[in-house]
Amino acid sequence: MVEGGKAGPNKVNLVEKFGHFSEYWQQKIVAEVNDFYVKIAKLQGSFEWHRHEREDELFYLVKGRLLIRLRDREITLNEGDLFVVPKGTEHLPVAQNEAWVMVLEPKTAVNTGDVGGERTVAPEWI
Amino acid sequence: MVEGGKAGPNKVNLVEKFGHFSEYWQQKIVAEVNDFYVKIAKLQGSFEWHRHEREDELFYLVKGRLLIRLRDREITLNEGDLFVVPKGTEHLPVAQNEAWVMVLEPKTAVNTGDVGGERTVAPEWI
Repeated sequence: MVEGGKAGPNKVNLVEKFGHFSEYWQQKIVAEVNDFYVKIAKLQGSFEWHRHEREDELFYLVKGRLLIRLRDREITLNEGDLFVVPKGTEHLPVAQNEAWVMVLEPKTAVNTGDVGGERTVAPEWI
Repeated sequence: MVEGGKAGPNKVNLVEKFGHFSEYWQQKIVAEVNDFYVKIAKLQGSFEWHRHEREDELFYLVKGRLLIRLRDREITLNEGDLFVVPKGTEHLPVAQNEAWVMVLEPKTAVNTGDVGGERTVAPEWI
C-alpha cells in the first residue's frame, strides 16, 4: 500500500491549497464530482449583484466572515457555516476582511451569473 | 434586514449539526445543491467494500482521521483533507476512532452502492 501515489486521484488539503494563491474573487477548482466542481476562493471587498439562472450555489466558510446579501435579507457566514443560494436568486457576497470560502456548484455556473462583465473569470484547477 | 429568518433557506453550521445525532454510518442531509446532497456522518469501525456505478463520492474530513481503502492503495484523510472516490471504484472506509465527515455526491447515490444489504440506509434531513 502506498499513500496517495501518482496513479489515480489524490487527496487534497483545503488549507494547503489556499496557500498557493493570493488573488481575490478567482475561483480555483480543487475537485470534481460528476458534473460539479468543488472550488475555493479568497474574497475581500464587495462582488457584483448577480444570479445563476439554473445553478444553486453553496458557500462554505473556511476562514473569516462573509456577508451574503440577498434582496430581502442578509446572511452572515462564520467559520464552519454553509449556505446555499438558490438558483435564480440575486445575491451579493461582501467580505469586509479577507474570507476563505469553498464553493460548490454545477460546472456550468459562471462566477458573475447573468451579469457578465469584466469580473467574469473561468475557474482554473489549482 | 434580518439574520436568516423563517422564509427561505437558512445557513447551517456543520459542527452544530454533528451535535444532533450520535449513530454511526447514518448519513444526514444538511443541504441540497441542484441534484446533489451535502451530507454529514459519524464513522467508527469498518464499513463494507462497495462501489457506486455512476456517482463520484467526495469525502471531506471535519474531525478525526479516516482511512479510505481502495483495492490498490489507501488514502488517509486528516482534518481538512478531501478525497473523491471515482465512480466504479471499490472502496472501504475505515475509522479506527470516531471520525466526522462531510459527503458530497449525487442524490441518486446509495450508501452501500452495488452491494446493498442490511447496512443500506436512506439519508435523512437533519
